[in-house]
Amino acid sequence: MADPFEQLRERMAALADLRNVSQLLDWDQQTMMPPRGAAARAETVSTVERISHDMFVSDQTGRLLEAAEAHLDGASPDSDDASLVRVVKRRWEKARRVPSDLAADLARAASVGQQAWTVARRESEFAGVAPYLERNFELVRRYVDCFDDLDCAYDALLDDFEPGARTVEVARLFDELKSELIALIAAVAGRSDRVDDSCLHGHFPVDRQRQLVTWLLEQMGFDRASWRIDDAVHPFASGFGNRDVRITTRWDEHYLPTSLYGAMHECGHGLYEEGVAEALQRTPLGHPESLGLHESQSRLWENMVGRGRPLCGVLAPRIAELFGGPVSGLDGEGLYRAVNRVAPSLIRVEADEVTYSLHIVLRFELEQELVEGRLAIRDLPEAWNARYKEYLGVDVPDDAQGVLQDVHWAAGLIGYFPTYALGNLIAGQLFRCARADLPDLDVQLAAGRLHGLREWLREHVHQHGAKFSTSELLQRVAGGPIAVGPFVEYLKGKLSQVYDLDLG
Amino acid sequence: MADPFEQLRERMAALADLRNVSQLLDWDQQTMMPPRGAAARAETVSTVERISHDMFVSDQTGRLLEAAEAHLDGASPDSDDASLVRVVKRRWEKARRVPSDLAADLARAASVGQQAWTVARRESEFAGVAPYLERNFELVRRYVDCFDDLDCAYDALLDDFEPGARTVEVARLFDELKSELIALIAAVAGRSDRVDDSCLHGHFPVDRQRQLVTWLLEQMGFDRASWRIDDAVHPFASGFGNRDVRITTRWDEHYLPTSLYGAMHECGHGLYEEGVAEALQRTPLGHPESLGLHESQSRLWENMVGRGRPLCGVLAPRIAELFGGPVSGLDGEGLYRAVNRVAPSLIRVEADEVTYSLHIVLRFELEQELVEGRLAIRDLPEAWNARYKEYLGVDVPDDAQGVLQDVHWAAGLIGYFPTYALGNLIAGQLFRCARADLPDLDVQLAAGRLHGLREWLREHVHQHGAKFSTSELLQRVAGGPIAVGPFVEYLKGKLSQVYDLDLG
Repeated sequence: MADPFEQLRERMAALADLRNVSQLLDWDQQTMMPPRGAAARAETVSTVERISHDMFVSDQTGRLLEAAEAHLDGASPDSDDASLVRVVKRRWEKARRVPSDLAADLARAASVGQQAWTVARRESEFAGVAPYLERNFELVRRYVDCFDDLDCAYDALLDDFEPGARTVEVARLFDELKSELIALIAAVAGRSDRVDDSCLHGHFPVDRQRQLVTWLLEQMGFDRASWRIDDAVHPFASGFGNRDVRITTRWDEHYLPTSLYGAMHECGHGLYEEGVAEALQRTPLGHPESLGLHESQSRLWENMVGRGRPLCGVLAPRIAELFGGPVSGLDGEGLYRAVNRVAPSLIRVEADEVTYSLHIVLRFELEQELVEGRLAIRDLPEAWNARYKEYLGVDVPDDAQGVLQDVHWAAGLIGYFPTYALGNLIAGQLFRCARADLPDLDVQLAAGRLHGLREWLREHVHQHGAKFSTSELLQRVAGGPIAVGPFVEYLKGKLSQVYDLDLG
Repeated sequence: MADPFEQLRERMAALADLRNVSQLLDWDQQTMMPPRGAAARAETVSTVERISHDMFVSDQTGRLLEAAEAHLDGASPDSDDASLVRVVKRRWEKARRVPSDLAADLARAASVGQQAWTVARRESEFAGVAPYLERNFELVRRYVDCFDDLDCAYDALLDDFEPGARTVEVARLFDELKSELIALIAAVAGRSDRVDDSCLHGHFPVDRQRQLVTWLLEQMGFDRASWRIDDAVHPFASGFGNRDVRITTRWDEHYLPTSLYGAMHECGHGLYEEGVAEALQRTPLGHPESLGLHESQSRLWENMVGRGRPLCGVLAPRIAELFGGPVSGLDGEGLYRAVNRVAPSLIRVEADEVTYSLHIVLRFELEQELVEGRLAIRDLPEAWNARYKEYLGVDVPDDAQGVLQDVHWAAGLIGYFPTYALGNLIAGQLFRCARADLPDLDVQLAAGRLHGLREWLREHVHQHGAKFSTSELLQRVAGGPIAVGPFVEYLKGKLSQVYDLDLG
């Protein structure tokens, strides 16, 4: 009889390949596919999901898992083998409760909905996407019904994006975070005269933005031999193994941070995909699983590094030189203040670090209401706008800048949003650890040397792929579970500098 | 019990989706994938082939076929249902003789070989691709061994690209064609002073070439809603259903025909994919199967239309206006003569219409020798160069312009080449029929109106997808099998004009 591990690995390798297929179908749809290809694409996506689901949930997978588990023979829980069994078993037990038809329907609806969103957003026409949202939430309710041991419906969804997370615990973290953020916003509210961000608005020719972004990404580790960057309506990152990493961005000729920080953000995701150990390639552990951890990487690079004082000192003279004119006198301190201006706004992905998480909290609340049927799709735009007024004090002028700004719900990604704010918290914890381990980190960053931090992240986070859950990984690196403290401390430190305050 | 046709269609629809996946994996590899992604991509390609092969050759497919066949109940052989059963049964009976492992190995080796070729060609280093050719031909011999009822080994390969074709019959056609072509080459050999093609060589900025090509493709039917065009080292066309058609081309700043006729050629392929009837989408009949027929479409557009006198009259003033300088005085007659100059040369895809088929004949001969083991891979470059000297009288300066010019063997496409010359013959037959049906065709083309011909091709060829074999289709349209006569007559007519000869 063949080694049960070999058999399990072989089956899982084929499933990892199918995962790459699904990723490629999606990457292509978002970057390359002609629009009329959408209907056929949705069928293809659905078929791949059905085949993959059937192959995964089969009894044969169960038998292989059982045999492999019996074979573990005291292997350390941290070993690749034990992790493989642990992770696959958890996923298998969840996935096998879901009928194949439903898995295929979810995939098809997500593909179709994503395409409808692209048009609806362009035309700022909520009605164009509403039937697809109805369908996605209906399917998601059927999905939730597959599980009979939940504290709440939303737990099943959240767990798909942040394995092991519980709604009640996320709500507790968000309550704590929200009150801290509201206090910070209040603290800086009267001091908007301290920060001038006019240097970020102006005329920035896209070809020069490309030069700046390319240079910056290369410092981070972007390399054309195994990476590519393309344009997308809603930027994202994909990994097809550790040697084919693809990021996307968008360019705004009148506002520099869109491309600059958007690309840094996605490159942060890409580095995570690239950094997974060679031994985990073509296994179910070969792709990071927790989107909270994933987002911690993108937010850490975008904000803690990219909007940090040391790197601003490197970026400012380059920006001044490339674009001249009104920014010709820009210095590091000016850029540092500008890119850290706190101001409630409409668009999540362009929000400052303080208000950003409030965009998430309101989405987290709204999608629970939608899943539980307490809010109807037709009432969503109104609820959205009311929540923005209440939490951020802003008036939403149209749906494109409101409920249509994000692709997630149309693309079936329901339960995904909270991971963005969890990512901020985790980034706060990891950045604190990195600082402790690399005493000269600021000196490195101020010299534009980013590889020290990248290697630290690779060693402590990236290489493990999906071996450890977020809490397991944080326990190893930071000595405890997700916490609000470090992120808030980090914000206070920054705001004290930017707003000339003592936030202690 | 469910309708056996419905069950068969459902299974075949999933297989059609998997075919699209394989096509996308290949399209992406050739146009987008970062080079270091190749190893993972080869595994993915192999896994998809294995799953698809297993699903297709299963006994369940056989049972569905049998039930569907019993259900046909006197349906016309031309009906979609009868064609589905006929075509799927033929493919199933062939595919089930091939073990799944071998199918997967062939797919993996093709993907790996294709990538190796890209590097080897760039560096003109045959040794870089030789081990991959060894592997591909070894696998192909194992593939041939799966069939015990062949007249010759090559039949099994040829049939994959041109279903129903037999090596002996193709050899007979090629013998006839070769002697006709050699006579034509001899007839014009002393008259090279009649044709000046210097207008095609010069400086043609790529952005203006793009303008010219875009305009021309749009006249043919290219539409960004369902098409895209990209760059590729070795241009090709792909179809993912009739609403997602992708072509590729390459640009030579110093030689205009590369992009102009290359793009027309691929667009001809694309129109075939786009033209398949809606009712055949997501069935095994939804993609043209005969590569001879496919090539007839590309060659017809590239040569009979694109290098025809009427359209040259439209193209010449546009070229003159766009590029000016040495071509500012170009007229239709001058362009017509230039693009039809007969001159033995090194590169197949840039050969004139007369010598082109000789490039094919020698490949057809060499690959039979390689399959049968009469020629060793290590001796291939020498054999290639000797054959070029013998058939075309040219000296091959390096492997990049010799045996490495085509990707096919490295990409596992063995038995494919003859379909190019068969395509020329079929194009000759179809163009003759179109002329008879559309008496004002020249007037239309001379006015730049290409849709009349496109619609004729759609009605007589494209819409049928893979319903009919080449001989069935030619019987319907031209009243007989593949023949050399019409193509040679067409060439004689053209050469008589271009070289001021009477070739009767």
